[in-house]
Amino acid sequence: MNAPADFSHLLARAREPFPASTKSWINGSCADLRVPVRDIRLTNGELVSVYDTSGPYTDPAAEIDVRRGLADVRGGWIAARGDTESYDGRQRQALDDGQRGEDAARLAVLREQASALQRTPRRAKAGANVTQMHYAKRGIVTPEMEYVALRENGKREWMAQYMQDAAREQRLAGNPLGASIPRIITPEFVRDEVARGRAIIPSNINHPEVEPMAIGRNFKVKINANIGNSAVTSSIEEEVEKLVWAIRWGADNVMDLSTGKNIHTTRDWIIRNSPVPIGTVPIYQALEKVGGIAEDLTWEIFRDTLIEQAEQGVDYFTIHAGVRLAFIHLTANRRTGIVSRGGSIMAKWCMAHHRESFLYEHFEDICDIMKAYDVSFSLGDGLRPGCASDANDEAQFAELHTLGELTKTAWKHDVQTMIEGPGHVPMHLIQANMTEQLKTCHEAPFYTLGPLTIDIAPGYDHIASAIGAAMIGWMGTSMLCYVTPKEHLGLPDREDVKQGIMAYKIAAHAADVAKGHPGARARDDALSQARFEFRWQDQFNLGLDPETAQEYHDETLPKDAAKVAHFCSMCGPKFCSMKITQEVREYAAARGMAESDGLAAGMQAKAEEFNRAGGEFYVPIHPVS
Amino acid sequence: MNAPADFSHLLARAREPFPASTKSWINGSCADLRVPVRDIRLTNGELVSVYDTSGPYTDPAAEIDVRRGLADVRGGWIAARGDTESYDGRQRQALDDGQRGEDAARLAVLREQASALQRTPRRAKAGANVTQMHYAKRGIVTPEMEYVALRENGKREWMAQYMQDAAREQRLAGNPLGASIPRIITPEFVRDEVARGRAIIPSNINHPEVEPMAIGRNFKVKINANIGNSAVTSSIEEEVEKLVWAIRWGADNVMDLSTGKNIHTTRDWIIRNSPVPIGTVPIYQALEKVGGIAEDLTWEIFRDTLIEQAEQGVDYFTIHAGVRLAFIHLTANRRTGIVSRGGSIMAKWCMAHHRESFLYEHFEDICDIMKAYDVSFSLGDGLRPGCASDANDEAQFAELHTLGELTKTAWKHDVQTMIEGPGHVPMHLIQANMTEQLKTCHEAPFYTLGPLTIDIAPGYDHIASAIGAAMIGWMGTSMLCYVTPKEHLGLPDREDVKQGIMAYKIAAHAADVAKGHPGARARDDALSQARFEFRWQDQFNLGLDPETAQEYHDETLPKDAAKVAHFCSMCGPKFCSMKITQEVREYAAARGMAESDGLAAGMQAKAEEFNRAGGEFYVPIHPVS
Repeated sequence: MNAPADFSHLLARAREPFPASTKSWINGSCADLRVPVRDIRLTNGELVSVYDTSGPYTDPAAEIDVRRGLADVRGGWIAARGDTESYDGRQRQALDDGQRGEDAARLAVLREQASALQRTPRRAKAGANVTQMHYAKRGIVTPEMEYVALRENGKREWMAQYMQDAAREQRLAGNPLGASIPRIITPEFVRDEVARGRAIIPSNINHPEVEPMAIGRNFKVKINANIGNSAVTSSIEEEVEKLVWAIRWGADNVMDLSTGKNIHTTRDWIIRNSPVPIGTVPIYQALEKVGGIAEDLTWEIFRDTLIEQAEQGVDYFTIHAGVRLAFIHLTANRRTGIVSRGGSIMAKWCMAHHRESFLYEHFEDICDIMKAYDVSFSLGDGLRPGCASDANDEAQFAELHTLGELTKTAWKHDVQTMIEGPGHVPMHLIQANMTEQLKTCHEAPFYTLGPLTIDIAPGYDHIASAIGAAMIGWMGTSMLCYVTPKEHLGLPDREDVKQGIMAYKIAAHAADVAKGHPGARARDDALSQARFEFRWQDQFNLGLDPETAQEYHDETLPKDAAKVAHFCSMCGPKFCSMKITQEVREYAAARGMAESDGLAAGMQAKAEEFNRAGGEFYVPIHPVS
Repeated sequence: MNAPADFSHLLARAREPFPASTKSWINGSCADLRVPVRDIRLTNGELVSVYDTSGPYTDPAAEIDVRRGLADVRGGWIAARGDTESYDGRQRQALDDGQRGEDAARLAVLREQASALQRTPRRAKAGANVTQMHYAKRGIVTPEMEYVALRENGKREWMAQYMQDAAREQRLAGNPLGASIPRIITPEFVRDEVARGRAIIPSNINHPEVEPMAIGRNFKVKINANIGNSAVTSSIEEEVEKLVWAIRWGADNVMDLSTGKNIHTTRDWIIRNSPVPIGTVPIYQALEKVGGIAEDLTWEIFRDTLIEQAEQGVDYFTIHAGVRLAFIHLTANRRTGIVSRGGSIMAKWCMAHHRESFLYEHFEDICDIMKAYDVSFSLGDGLRPGCASDANDEAQFAELHTLGELTKTAWKHDVQTMIEGPGHVPMHLIQANMTEQLKTCHEAPFYTLGPLTIDIAPGYDHIASAIGAAMIGWMGTSMLCYVTPKEHLGLPDREDVKQGIMAYKIAAHAADVAKGHPGARARDDALSQARFEFRWQDQFNLGLDPETAQEYHDETLPKDAAKVAHFCSMCGPKFCSMKITQEVREYAAARGMAESDGLAAGMQAKAEEFNRAGGEFYVPIHPVS
């Protein structure tokens, strides 16, 4: 990333609270269970409380030293279950960092920086299964589940007035399209969703710093941001700053897609400092270990890599076990063939050995590892379409059916599982993706990349894909992997990451509103009310990006006075439709509007009043007509 | 707009052809009928030809003097019909420019600058009706209709290979959702669509410079950009530069929403230099003439303003005749009341006089003016929702039904008509808008603003609304009015205008692809093919914004060599899924893939070949998994 030099300075800035915002907590049933939210104080005294992904970083009271890592959130809960043990763990090797000795001195420095981040790994005791799904199936409501319930509800008090409208009018209630979201999320509901596999709580026992969150169709739609892929890392601060920047703007999950050297050590830094679940694609590191020769990959090397990353605390693994030997030829007539990196690695391996994928053949062995640490599956779509004209083809759906079969196997082992989806899909083919996934994968959470609805927008693919993401999110997708403006062109820098996250927060929220997620609309209503009442500052502060909103407003009306001005910056103080609406409202309140006589009389009165008052004039919000 | 000082310089830059592009023409049935397209020459010799809204400005051979205006395109056609006459026209007054003498000197200068732009107006001969709809209903195929047909088809030769795929596979054919788009658009089809009111060709006889285009459900989805609203204009160049900038990036229509002083003279500059239809909201100027006091508006002043603008050549008028006295109280319980400027002007007038709207009562008188110049109606939605929670309410639909009734009246006079729509609509309420509009307005073209799907994205409303625009475009909306990042916050500058247009070109194209507009997908396929074959330069040049795409690519891989590099800038030259696909393809071509024996044998051969070849490695297009 083209990030500036002083990362500790950037990190300090990324820790500043949002305007008019304070972090507060919703207390759970025990002292060590408190769920963070961001409270936005409005100028009219109202308080709007929103979902907060930014972790302790936006808590001025939190003392954070990225070289020591974040405070432990879940450690007590994990220990209390008594089904895990700490152990020495696997011996770290230079090869874990892609080293064959050539850079030993540099590696030593990096490891020294990270030495305080090392933790003794835990694993399930012999014969135990420590997945949230395993507990859920046995009727146990874990603190993680309670945490998720409180987090999904948020502070309902302030929403009450807005939620009443939705209850009153069907048009405001949304259309869930088959989702079944209760008005109040209870811990028991979370348990049931996890037990039936319709939601996951990515939470490796070796990532106790994580603030639990759920990915599932009956919860808020989540978004994932990718980091990594950078050149040789300069410092802990740089890696952590990328992470903090992404979660500040609302990333619910982060995938570390780093390749090349020092990836093991980099991962230590990211996980120890991350309050959100971290996902990886282990085949990338396994490939590094065999010098980049796919044919040389073996089950043993891959297995060793899974354990290495599970011990570090990775919360979910993308595993491309659906790329089977028999499917590869189905991509032969595609316009852009295989575009998934993991998918093409496995395709090459299968072709080179003319053997079935070792990921497919060893899938149950993988499950045994997952359940010993509670790592979740993100079953990768290695055969996803790389362009609109390859969407919904035979190769894509053949793999999807296999992912459904593997889901059943994972669930047999009580391993939490979600399914990755495309990619590139024109609008008219999106519904079929969702319908097929729900049917063949038994409602396991769907996690899609976009999809991009057209291919002619390089430089603007965050927009081309936000359209598809919003639609598929409404239809039932649980998490949306963001796309940045640099997609297909280059590596995203900080600004690209922010632009990608903004586009996806919009898509995810549009989906929540359309699905009728209880209270999702409340923030929109609060902002619209502020707009109507000319509370400019509230309008900025309730938005996804208060700084940019205020900056744009200031370009036209720089003075502070304008922040309380009773007119709209588009057209000046001369005319305002809002004023008229106020007058209509006063009248309507005074009279029953039902019968037209009342109306006529009222209008007559209004007319006289107007003519007395004379015409002070304002302007409206929309520049058009 | 915060535009730089030297507009003639900016104008010169905005005239530069796009990379690898040349303007060419499709010849019609007569010498003076030739339709411009932009031909993009690819590095593999292929030629991709795209719809071109930029007018003569991107033709290096065209000599353009903005102080004299563009060359005449339609003059001969209009004269040949022999049903119009030129006449002295209405006497221009200082008040037309919002002047009461205070700024006379400045106005004199501005008028002097524009003196060469003055043209003698034409109107229908007594008793004649000169609308395209009138001709269409009488079975006459006008040159304008033939122009539109050729323009909608474009050069079909290059699309053939791509269109075959769509013919072969249903999934690529799109889902028209009730639209009926023929594979080839004939002039007769255009005539029929105009005759039945399902499409309009905005083309005032006093705007002979316009390059005819159609707005209708069975044609490409079009976009509108708004200009004007600026402070006192500095020069002709500034106004014209805004226009040229908007059409360079793809605006099919431009609305001049200027208010305040000098708007008559500014409009002369814009229309005389515009190759795209120009729309206005005449009530804005009428309001200026009565000093901003809505109550003082009269039918006579409004009528005079319509004639003034019709003589100048405005192609369509937004008329808020659906804001009836009896509907105003329906907005009483709204969260944001009336947000349309025109709507609130009329609401205030109705309430002040306690009378029915003079626009509604004089609607047939307005029709008489429209048909004498072929000005089209854009029936304004003065009661559109201003936020998600007011969407699809009683007030909105009451007005929509009235617009349907007025459409019938306009059609009785053979006046071309389209219907304006919201605004702010969450995804789950969008379909109802389209369904109601098609039903109550008898398939007259729908022209929507967005709609915005959420309210919490100030600073990013071009994205929040592009989601709704793409969806409603697919469902049947004919033209999308853009929203810029400054919506609700301030006045858009040049960059905001470009960002708004980009988001809406994406939405409109996504809709065309989903509807299965013949050939719409061809450009996507050509770009994806270039991507697959690592023809970087072609990938940039086929995109909506070649400059930005190349700039983003160069940030990561600056060297020219990288433009032909056989790897993707995301992950370096080490590994590429595309390579594998090529190998799969060669194999599949050599063998019948049907029976698994063939496959097995093939895979075996492939395996050996691989092991002989050994592992050169590349990387794929998508950074994720």
